Amino acid sequence: MRIAILNGPNLNLLGSREPEIYGNISFETYLEDLKLEFNSVELVYFQSNHEGELIDQLHLFGFNCDGIIINAGAYTHTSIAIADAIKSITAPVIEVHISNVYSRESYRHHSFLSSVVKGSIVGFGLNSYKLALQSFLYK
Amino acid sequence: MRIAILNGPNLNLLGSREPEIYGNISFETYLEDLKLEFNSVELVYFQSNHEGELIDQLHLFGFNCDGIIINAGAYTHTSIAIADAIKSITAPVIEVHISNVYSRESYRHHSFLSSVVKGSIVGFGLNSYKLALQSFLYK
Amino acid sequence: MRIAILNGPNLNLLGSREPEIYGNISFETYLEDLKLEFNSVELVYFQSNHEGELIDQLHLFGFNCDGIIINAGAYTHTSIAIADAIKSITAPVIEVHISNVYSRESYRHHSFLSSVVKGSIVGFGLNSYKLALQSFLYK
Amino acid sequence: MRIAILNGPNLNLLGSREPEIYGNISFETYLEDLKLEFNSVELVYFQSNHEGELIDQLHLFGFNCDGIIINAGAYTHTSIAIADAIKSITAPVIEVHISNVYSRESYRHHSFLSSVVKGSIVGFGLNSYKLALQSFLYK
Amino acid sequence: MRIAILNGPNLNLLGSREPEIYGNISFETYLEDLKLEFNSVELVYFQSNHEGELIDQLHLFGFNCDGIIINAGAYTHTSIAIADAIKSITAPVIEVHISNVYSRESYRHHSFLSSVVKGSIVGFGLNSYKLALQSFLYK
Amino acid sequence: MRIAILNGPNLNLLGSREPEIYGNISFETYLEDLKLEFNSVELVYFQSNHEGELIDQLHLFGFNCDGIIINAGAYTHTSIAIADAIKSITAPVIEVHISNVYSRESYRHHSFLSSVVKGSIVGFGLNSYKLALQSFLYK
Amino acid sequence: MRIAILNGPNLNLLGSREPEIYGNISFETYLEDLKLEFNSVELVYFQSNHEGELIDQLHLFGFNCDGIIINAGAYTHTSIAIADAIKSITAPVIEVHISNVYSRESYRHHSFLSSVVKGSIVGFGLNSYKLALQSFLYK
Amino acid sequence: MRIAILNGPNLNLLGSREPEIYGNISFETYLEDLKLEFNSVELVYFQSNHEGELIDQLHLFGFNCDGIIINAGAYTHTSIAIADAIKSITAPVIEVHISNVYSRESYRHHSFLSSVVKGSIVGFGLNSYKLALQSFLYK
Amino acid sequence: MRIAILNGPNLNLLGSREPEIYGNISFETYLEDLKLEFNSVELVYFQSNHEGELIDQLHLFGFNCDGIIINAGAYTHTSIAIADAIKSITAPVIEVHISNVYSRESYRHHSFLSSVVKGSIVGFGLNSYKLALQSFLYK
Amino acid sequence: MRIAILNGPNLNLLGSREPEIYGNISFETYLEDLKLEFNSVELVYFQSNHEGELIDQLHLFGFNCDGIIINAGAYTHTSIAIADAIKSITAPVIEVHISNVYSRESYRHHSFLSSVVKGSIVGFGLNSYKLALQSFLYK
Amino acid sequence: MRIAILNGPNLNLLGSREPEIYGNISFETYLEDLKLEFNSVELVYFQSNHEGELIDQLHLFGFNCDGIIINAGAYTHTSIAIADAIKSITAPVIEVHISNVYSRESYRHHSFLSSVVKGSIVGFGLNSYKLALQSFLYK
Amino acid sequence: MRIAILNGPNLNLLGSREPEIYGNISFETYLEDLKLEFNSVELVYFQSNHEGELIDQLHLFGFNCDGIIINAGAYTHTSIAIADAIKSITAPVIEVHISNVYSRESYRHHSFLSSVVKGSIVGFGLNSYKLALQSFLYK
Repeated sequence: MRIAILNGPNLNLLGSREPEIYGNISFETYLEDLKLEFNSVELVYFQSNHEGELIDQLHLFGFNCDGIIINAGAYTHTSIAIADAIKSITAPVIEVHISNVYSRESYRHHSFLSSVVKGSIVGFGLNSYKLALQSFLYK
Repeated sequence: MRIAILNGPNLNLLGSREPEIYGNISFETYLEDLKLEFNSVELVYFQSNHEGELIDQLHLFGFNCDGIIINAGAYTHTSIAIADAIKSITAPVIEVHISNVYSRESYRHHSFLSSVVKGSIVGFGLNSYKLALQSFLYK
Repeated sequence: MRIAILNGPNLNLLGSREPEIYGNISFETYLEDLKLEFNSVELVYFQSNHEGELIDQLHLFGFNCDGIIINAGAYTHTSIAIADAIKSITAPVIEVHISNVYSRESYRHHSFLSSVVKGSIVGFGLNSYKLALQSFLYK
Repeated sequence: MRIAILNGPNLNLLGSREPEIYGNISFETYLEDLKLEFNSVELVYFQSNHEGELIDQLHLFGFNCDGIIINAGAYTHTSIAIADAIKSITAPVIEVHISNVYSRESYRHHSFLSSVVKGSIVGFGLNSYKLALQSFLYK
Repeated sequence: MRIAILNGPNLNLLGSREPEIYGNISFETYLEDLKLEFNSVELVYFQSNHEGELIDQLHLFGFNCDGIIINAGAYTHTSIAIADAIKSITAPVIEVHISNVYSRESYRHHSFLSSVVKGSIVGFGLNSYKLALQSFLYK
Repeated sequence: MRIAILNGPNLNLLGSREPEIYGNISFETYLEDLKLEFNSVELVYFQSNHEGELIDQLHLFGFNCDGIIINAGAYTHTSIAIADAIKSITAPVIEVHISNVYSRESYRHHSFLSSVVKGSIVGFGLNSYKLALQSFLYK
Repeated sequence: MRIAILNGPNLNLLGSREPEIYGNISFETYLEDLKLEFNSVELVYFQSNHEGELIDQLHLFGFNCDGIIINAGAYTHTSIAIADAIKSITAPVIEVHISNVYSRESYRHHSFLSSVVKGSIVGFGLNSYKLALQSFLYK
Repeated sequence: MRIAILNGPNLNLLGSREPEIYGNISFETYLEDLKLEFNSVELVYFQSNHEGELIDQLHLFGFNCDGIIINAGAYTHTSIAIADAIKSITAPVIEVHISNVYSRESYRHHSFLSSVVKGSIVGFGLNSYKLALQSFLYK
Repeated sequence: MRIAILNGPNLNLLGSREPEIYGNISFETYLEDLKLEFNSVELVYFQSNHEGELIDQLHLFGFNCDGIIINAGAYTHTSIAIADAIKSITAPVIEVHISNVYSRESYRHHSFLSSVVKGSIVGFGLNSYKLALQSFLYK
Repeated sequence: MRIAILNGPNLNLLGSREPEIYGNISFETYLEDLKLEFNSVELVYFQSNHEGELIDQLHLFGFNCDGIIINAGAYTHTSIAIADAIKSITAPVIEVHISNVYSRESYRHHSFLSSVVKGSIVGFGLNSYKLALQSFLYK
Repeated sequence: MRIAILNGPNLNLLGSREPEIYGNISFETYLEDLKLEFNSVELVYFQSNHEGELIDQLHLFGFNCDGIIINAGAYTHTSIAIADAIKSITAPVIEVHISNVYSRESYRHHSFLSSVVKGSIVGFGLNSYKLALQSFLYK
Repeated sequence: MRIAILNGPNLNLLGSREPEIYGNISFETYLEDLKLEFNSVELVYFQSNHEGELIDQLHLFGFNCDGIIINAGAYTHTSIAIADAIKSITAPVIEVHISNVYSRESYRHHSFLSSVVKGSIVGFGLNSYKLALQSFLYK
């Protein structure tokens, strides 16, 4: 089983940016944990601050992975193009968020992705990624 | 570890109601699976079509459980009183939905509960409950 | 033919409450007239001020009646849960209102039930129930 | 007793237009049935695609009929002028719709006529007209 | 003089729930103070988390009390049914809130009850009840 | 000087329709008064319940009159087509209303015509026409 | 007959301010014309840039004049207090505007005064005042 | 191949009305050019300022033409009835506009027709019609 | 204890203005009653129709009184400046309204002051002031 | 004559993505047809999933082409930056869409580009590009 | 060079009011600094809590100064009259705010003044005035 | 002191694009002036049409500069991702705009950046950059 994890804008700063909201571990460090815990899964990781590169990667992984986990960061709330990319590919996609977006600014309450993904996992800290991976194992 | 699962209106019909959306297994049947899989957890279950009874149960379980999983059904979208009950108790609460509410009618896109729960898991069918349980084990 | 009539909140006060809008006959008295006029129909009647009990009764009658007539009172405008219950059952449901809700406060102009019932009859006083019963006889 | 039935735009195509929504019987054919069933009533019928002609006919019938049944079609949602005409005449007016307008496009959910008619009957197919006629007999 | 006090959802937790907003005295304790201070008034008290029970009690007390004081909690913002019950009874009703609802979440700024009660008293802590009682003595 | 007066839908009922709002004199009777008082002006009059006919007449009079006075009735609030016709012609147009439309239903508060006419005169009863005529004499 | 003319903010600059919209005659100069033309009327004039002073003057003139003509300038769109003052007095009030407010910024399309005045005259340049005066002579 | 061109309100003034927006050639003159250029197509032309007549013509041409080109003018933005007529007929319909409606008043940005036509061509001057005709030749 | 009472626009007309809403006693007369009933309190009174003067007085009394009672009249709904003044001073402020503003025009339902005052008392007639005074005695 | 065609996000998947909406021919294949049919035109083609690259290309082609045809895909609905780029260049730009965006999700009904392009062609499948090219030949 | 500085409501309390937002220096003290630093500029200063007086001063300074710096406080968000005054005068006007109004309550995000001033400087504390003065020196 | 200037989409065309709005000097030319005038400051400059590259640069400069001046062009109004980047870094950021965005299209009135920057400077032409630089010198 091959799963791609795509992280969007500003998530490269994870661990240093607003640690009271996002915690103080970098995603690269966390990825090592994930790989250990889900050692039966081939994990591919990509991060970009560019909306277009996230779309390119969705096209790339969308036809040769068993699933994609996406945390599109702020593009969640503004990008119809990423939502269209998700609809255009064959791999099932799970949307995750580290923080509880519904208890933050109102412009973070709407996601263009939610209606086109298989499911959403919101608010569990970095465990959101773990639960998303787990969901692929159930199916 | 003691976890309460609360189901809201019309979920007693699970298995017969709109099976193309909700599947054809009753929650009671599914609960047996959950108990087997999570045998280290004491699972308590309650379903009601009454907003007030859901609040009563949140008060009851909210101070003597390690966590609560709630699928408030349609009350998700209309009940500030249930949201207030969640804020009033000490147990962490996870919101789950079986279907992807974001790909259905627009009045199902807003949840009064989302901003007061610890996290939300939406669209994984009955596996949404399994992932919610799993989340309590991580932490 | 078996038809259930469900009345929602405050309709137990019919005959005393705001008689200039709702008339001065209690529904129980009127029910006797209905039974006489539609003597080929078995009429079942239930009133509650509780949203949850209306849902319980829809579940109860929804699989063993030939039709349901519902006047959900104020829950018409606020209850997605009752609308979901109507969608969950097999009996056809007719929505009735005694007064012309469209000539009253604007928050009475929207009904969550209208889009899921078979048809709506609004504004004919207590005759709204008679017309609803009549409609089942046509079909 | 003399009752006028007024049909608005596109209802002349009834029986051929979108039969999955409106059925496949023309209104003229149906009118014969109505006349047989309600043989004590003098039925007058008029159809027009012109908002102005519907107003002219409301003025014409509004002072010499015992009641008017109007299905204003799409003008229901856009014509304040027809609503004003209904307020200007003395005959009571009943609004009918063949389909359940509340389960269709959102711009069909608002009726300028509803607040000025005596009552509305929505969603019973051609039986909506029959119920409207019946309502005049009750009163 | 007989006055009923009705408290809505989650107010049974008063004293333990969010004390920084609602204080740390239970309502039952406070009620004793009220009875001492207003010893010429017969005070009746009822609390429920159920919208329907609040309506039932309004119907019960609404015709045999000199006044009703209601703190409908979260139902203030969502219940047209309770507002209809208030309009249906003969006793004058005063709406009270412990906290200043206008300095909290925007969905707490609108009350369905305000337009049908005699008056509203908002933000005086538990003294809001005292002022409401006082208001009945003036008149 | 040649001035056309155009009256829109339901104004043919003036004198009989809702006299508490519109008074009880027919416009034809009032027109005789106007002709006497403004005997230096050639007055042309046209009334129609048809939006299209009002546009036809605006085209007709719009190039051979010194001014047009229009009371478009309910079309005021719904007709962009009449507004376009006013912009397409060379004669200056004055909008009049008999009643104070701003103290009536909110859908009467917006006029598509107001932004394209020379001026508006609202709320003076039939004197609104007299003032409109007077305005042409000033200029 | 005694008529007061009240002008609101910035109208003291009439003649110099934005002459392409408001013309280049000061109101004081124009007032002399008005007095000559309506010599049977006692004209009182007051201008202020202060909302409070306009209210004071409405109170002053509102019980001892036969009519008031008000051009409240920008306060038209923001002052409920002036509207309340107009409702509080006994003299009939006419609202005038020099320019066609409906063809300018959208925030100038709503007037708090329109619903409480007897009538409105908009867009006739300084002749708007003349027509307002004329309207008092008709009645 | 038989194609009908339907023009709506005020388009009879084409060539004289607002030439800076619509150009200075009448549609009749332009039609001759179209006939010459598309001489393999039988072109039928109809213009009306009446919403009802446009509906009548859609019904007439809608079952015996290979396609219809409609410029509904201002009715584009207000007529659900014309949209319903387009849905009721079998001929494919193309919506055209001479000017770029999206760079004009905001109330011209929404078209009730766009969602029910085959395609829309906006902003090419009279060439919009030529492109619409061309589109029928491609298919 | 020193308490200031500030009344806003049009309240100087109390007793003569719209007595069916505001009663027929002037505030000065009522003030005498208040002084008698609350003789342990030093009462200061100020009324103005000027928004700026109310702000000046809030600044004046806001640092040398034990509390302020404000009925800002129509400025309640439009003045952010008065709300800012209330936030800028140290004396606690109570907002009162004589009538039930929630059962009147919708633009009276929002108060800029409510979120910055200690509490609000609405709808008790002149007794609203009495209750406000009483509230200072409790604390 | 030199014309640039710019395709936006996800259009690289044309032919495989959602063929029921977009057909099953890749744009590259279609481009060959276009070149054959319009052999007098030099056609330049560029596709990108990156908003920034589309802007770069508009700057590049915008000063050395006779026209640009843009299908900005989902950026149509979210990119003010692309609209600004179109305004900044000298080449005329035509907006095309393959599908009828107006019969799809409501967030696809608004285009930031429409008001700044010369014209729009929507809903003709791949023929939309052909018609756009044709439009440059007319002018 | 002569520059007027106008401060609006509550800015007389600068230094004492909400020092965590506005700092603890009075404007008069700060003005001395400004005069020293910009000793080539004649600085005129005026503060008022009265909307009308700010308009009066704009009229006064607007024709005999080289520029005006205005901090209209809360009137920024509610006063069309001050905006009109700015448009009516010849001196260029700069809008300043001490705090970052965009990170405060949403009703502070809109300024009626912004669209009519030359430029806006927001959020630099008292340095906002210094930058505004500086801007006049550049030009 | 090291300050970075970041310019967003289309600002590379400065000097050629819409010179009536943006002037006719390229930013590179202007940068030379800035460097001369602020010779004590190390100025870094970066321009991109790519949202992602602006984020990358904010991350790059955000931890090693004393301040950042950003003119995000159209991304100002659409990019939550850039706002998040600003919140994620430690350098203070100033938002500048060359033109007065508040006197242009309404979609330019809202900035996602304003609430997260230290301050905003709008409408001073290229001097906006100079004032922003000046502001860093003050502090």
